[in-house]
Amino acid sequence: MSLQFQIEATRGKARTGLLLTPHGEIETPIFMPVGTLASVKGVSQDILEDLGAQIILGNTYHLYLRPGVDTVRRMGGLHRFMSWPRAILTDSGGFQVFSLNELRKVNEEGVTFRSHLDGSSHFFSPESSMEAQIGIGADIIMAFDECTEFPADRARMKSSMEMTARWAARSKKYFEEHKHEVPWHTQREIPTLASPKSGESRMGHPLFPNATQSLFGIVQGGMDRDLRKESAERTIEIGFPGYAIGGLSVGEPRDLTREIIESTLEHLPTDKPRYVMGVGTPEEIVEYANLGVDMMDCVLPTRAARHGLLFTSEGKVSIKQARYTQDAGPLDPKCGCRVCQRYSRAYLRHLYASNEVLAQVLNTIHNLSFYLDTMRRVRHSIRLGEEFGF
Amino acid sequence: MSLQFQIEATRGKARTGLLLTPHGEIETPIFMPVGTLASVKGVSQDILEDLGAQIILGNTYHLYLRPGVDTVRRMGGLHRFMSWPRAILTDSGGFQVFSLNELRKVNEEGVTFRSHLDGSSHFFSPESSMEAQIGIGADIIMAFDECTEFPADRARMKSSMEMTARWAARSKKYFEEHKHEVPWHTQREIPTLASPKSGESRMGHPLFPNATQSLFGIVQGGMDRDLRKESAERTIEIGFPGYAIGGLSVGEPRDLTREIIESTLEHLPTDKPRYVMGVGTPEEIVEYANLGVDMMDCVLPTRAARHGLLFTSEGKVSIKQARYTQDAGPLDPKCGCRVCQRYSRAYLRHLYASNEVLAQVLNTIHNLSFYLDTMRRVRHSIRLGEEFGF
Repeated sequence: MSLQFQIEATRGKARTGLLLTPHGEIETPIFMPVGTLASVKGVSQDILEDLGAQIILGNTYHLYLRPGVDTVRRMGGLHRFMSWPRAILTDSGGFQVFSLNELRKVNEEGVTFRSHLDGSSHFFSPESSMEAQIGIGADIIMAFDECTEFPADRARMKSSMEMTARWAARSKKYFEEHKHEVPWHTQREIPTLASPKSGESRMGHPLFPNATQSLFGIVQGGMDRDLRKESAERTIEIGFPGYAIGGLSVGEPRDLTREIIESTLEHLPTDKPRYVMGVGTPEEIVEYANLGVDMMDCVLPTRAARHGLLFTSEGKVSIKQARYTQDAGPLDPKCGCRVCQRYSRAYLRHLYASNEVLAQVLNTIHNLSFYLDTMRRVRHSIRLGEEFGF
Repeated sequence: MSLQFQIEATRGKARTGLLLTPHGEIETPIFMPVGTLASVKGVSQDILEDLGAQIILGNTYHLYLRPGVDTVRRMGGLHRFMSWPRAILTDSGGFQVFSLNELRKVNEEGVTFRSHLDGSSHFFSPESSMEAQIGIGADIIMAFDECTEFPADRARMKSSMEMTARWAARSKKYFEEHKHEVPWHTQREIPTLASPKSGESRMGHPLFPNATQSLFGIVQGGMDRDLRKESAERTIEIGFPGYAIGGLSVGEPRDLTREIIESTLEHLPTDKPRYVMGVGTPEEIVEYANLGVDMMDCVLPTRAARHGLLFTSEGKVSIKQARYTQDAGPLDPKCGCRVCQRYSRAYLRHLYASNEVLAQVLNTIHNLSFYLDTMRRVRHSIRLGEEFGF
């Protein structure tokens, strides 16, 4: 048992269910906080647990550079390395190579790129991405794809999509041959389930014997609905336990993002988890969940927090503004998070204006709480058969 | 009732007791974490509570510049502003003016200095320091003194000490005339005692009716034992509920610091709390507590944490070192803090090397835990009549 997906209720196209992974159960639709370098920036793991984060995302590109796959593997995999007992997903590194490297060179074999840290030269292929992701040891890993730039002409979108399909087949082949090499697979002892804060959980042991990782395929095809359909069909033909829609949120207008998601979902199997990568605002994640998306991730709540931009039930708040200097009220009167329960807007404004590290810590906790709470309400609304939106 | 000090046990010169303030009880000898700008850098207030911090220190100079005394006063004082229900002490601003301003101008009236933030000109006097500290509203505030530079000749040490004595008298006069203006004094409702995490505690209400702040005097006199004796006598003659030894840790050798502390303590009343400002290493705070010091504060545990320097039962650890890259053990095997219980040296090293904010957060939590735990053990050893040292 490496992955199991059960839909428990539907409302129109939207569905809510359970995704069982080797390191825990995930309620879908789910938002995954981004923990690029084995840390959700500024937030300790116990607070992430308290916030109800059920799965977090790690970035293979960043972890490959620091601390390196060898170190993560020797430390028992990413769960044990960062002491995170719950589920983890890693991306393939393809998107970061795309977004952080203007000088990358792509050919059929893979991508040559330079480290954004020291300029050193590196090479990612479907096989080396799988090798890295197996060594890191997330529960769900992603096929190595090419994220098509925006805008791009049809010929470019088509050839890029076709290469992603060939890379998906190579990713699957390598993964199937090597999946038993995941650091936690050889651990024979499978402890009994215990409370999330016990010593057991910190070990990062899988919950089931003989579990391996699960590899998801990625649909590309740019902003062309027909190419997206073709990409979906070719990816499904290769066969994966879950499917992602990649290559969105790369500069296209929001209406187009939604249109591509909606049309692509029609071509994906309903009994498999469907993951839209790199989205979005609170309004967008609700909208996409209502379209039938099961998983999403985005740096927006954590990155915006670092810039003092906070999401609340009353809209966005830029906490740096002088109007909050003597505002004794909570950031969001309707929010039950530990930040809104304890601190005033005046205090949060002061921390931000004074460049205090606690500003980032508290802002991030609130924004993540808002995102996770929003998805909790979406799941609840689907179970009740009611519409939910902002 | 504004301050009450009870010595409960002694062992040689060392003593352990209770200091009761309007915002809670403090076990002495105590180490006070520094929260310069209404935040112990990187650590949220609930974690400080969990660590067992009973009193924290705020810096008047910094709070005066940001967010400003008026804002803190309007928000109900520093306890309510930062949502810290326990005791607070503020310094007078004298030391920061001394250490952060090379262009300060001192005369009998006070000190003219330039803001380290924007170069704007400001003036601190005994009266304006009291006004600021009353507006900020800590439980214990400090007389405005001149910190004598090191080295200094005897004439300079003597004239500086004498000015500090005159400023102490002016500080006390202003304080006695204005102490009822503290933001929390006019609050008529005194809620009943409740658990530290209840809504009540977050309000920052004092625990007793009609409580005011307490003003401590500061002994100066440079590195001259006779001048220190004279300063102690003159400060005691003015009369304060507690006495501090200032002007140490300004560049002098450690043996001299200890000598001045030991000799000055002989001239301070045994029934009042005795506070050495701005010290020290774990070894030093144990040593000074053993000499009979009741209170200490220092930026060392928090500042060192930000530079990856960690205090452990096995000595100092520079976590940035490559030797910890794959060290799966805890930072300090004998430490029960939430960092040592959950994370490995390899993970802490990775966070530091990757410049992750969580490095500062976790390092600071551990160092503060080490300091607070050390003082807990010192208090315990005094009660048992046993010697404690590193």
